Amino acid sequence: MLFRQLFDAQTSTYTYLIADESTKEAVLVDPVIEQVDRDYKLIKELGLNLYYCIETHIHADHITATYKLRKLTGCLGVVPAKAKVNCADIRIEEGDNLGVGGVNIEVISTPGHTSCHMAYLVGEDRVLTGDALFIRGCGRTDFQNGDAGTLYDSVTQKLFTLPDETLVYPAHDYRGNTVSTIGEEKQFNSRFARRTREEFIELMNNLDLPNPKKMMEAVPANEMCGKVAA
Amino acid sequence: MLFRQLFDAQTSTYTYLIADESTKEAVLVDPVIEQVDRDYKLIKELGLNLYYCIETHIHADHITATYKLRKLTGCLGVVPAKAKVNCADIRIEEGDNLGVGGVNIEVISTPGHTSCHMAYLVGEDRVLTGDALFIRGCGRTDFQNGDAGTLYDSVTQKLFTLPDETLVYPAHDYRGNTVSTIGEEKQFNSRFARRTREEFIELMNNLDLPNPKKMMEAVPANEMCGKVAA
Repeated sequence: MLFRQLFDAQTSTYTYLIADESTKEAVLVDPVIEQVDRDYKLIKELGLNLYYCIETHIHADHITATYKLRKLTGCLGVVPAKAKVNCADIRIEEGDNLGVGGVNIEVISTPGHTSCHMAYLVGEDRVLTGDALFIRGCGRTDFQNGDAGTLYDSVTQKLFTLPDETLVYPAHDYRGNTVSTIGEEKQFNSRFARRTREEFIELMNNLDLPNPKKMMEAVPANEMCGKVAA
Repeated sequence: MLFRQLFDAQTSTYTYLIADESTKEAVLVDPVIEQVDRDYKLIKELGLNLYYCIETHIHADHITATYKLRKLTGCLGVVPAKAKVNCADIRIEEGDNLGVGGVNIEVISTPGHTSCHMAYLVGEDRVLTGDALFIRGCGRTDFQNGDAGTLYDSVTQKLFTLPDETLVYPAHDYRGNTVSTIGEEKQFNSRFARRTREEFIELMNNLDLPNPKKMMEAVPANEMCGKVAA
């Protein structure tokens, strides 16, 4: 399996390129519109065929590259089933498998950051946690039908039940970390470790964060699969 | 083996934390002074004992965290043998092995970016290329006794003779890439691919880059292992 973590510095977003190296079938998870040229060039250099652009959720901080990559490569756009998006090619639910070639990508429903957020288990030992679980943190829960209690349940009852050695690859990191493990996050993620559901809700409901800079532009664009005026 | 890539966004520097997970012996390669708190916290959380802080070269863009980490952890500072540094604990040469526990870290002399630059082969399948080889690029050769022809030889005769599937982990990336392979760089790194030694020298000697912002501060501080006024 080819597994590449790619970073967008402007929004601190991680995109993941995953491929079966023998069949050359590939997927991108959470591609960023400003990075289309970089990602498309890499896909071509590696001789890959892009099958899917997969979203963990409808992003509020950046616009997806799906629309542009679909035009360039003919790939299919994949979004969570309940997402408010009417242009997707495939709508996925818990337990679906988006595998390409010999690589399994299993869908894990992890709502809370948004109401339809999905995580993805890649093979047996890596999980793409999107904005549900960051390295020593988690996504906010104060817009897009986010709900702190729901996020607590998703993380503690779904993600934290994966084997401790599972590698955690988040959709963002703001401190320069690239990877962690489920075991580490259970022990050292101060949002969840030794904190009750009620304490987590209290914490999250009082973060008082400003809205993401691009939110008013990004959410409507992502509801159209990343289609923007040329 | 534990292998963690850590990023300093201000200077686009990658630091690597490598450890034997059973013996808990660890090394940091190219730690950045501004990230001491992050890196020290991670080392403590993971229950690791830091044995070495290892430099690929004397950096001109950032100050090493070695001095601070040596005081915090008692680790040893490791620099290339010919580096103009008189405070290092260990001075290494081509072919030395800096392994910790069951993890081999083999020293490969790769001058050119600076006159005493070293790359490190970690285990059998990862190479830390420092500023000798970037993903689709390479370090500049216009100061600190850099020499374009020497860098061409280091990359094409040393690094490019590693197996194609060897993973390339550079000391910097400015475009959001995290990893590549020797095979990819041989084929797609436009600084070297299908370019003669003479063409490379011509290219490098005409880059006309501004000096790194922190150069006047970083080089003298790194010659003192990262000791700075409090």
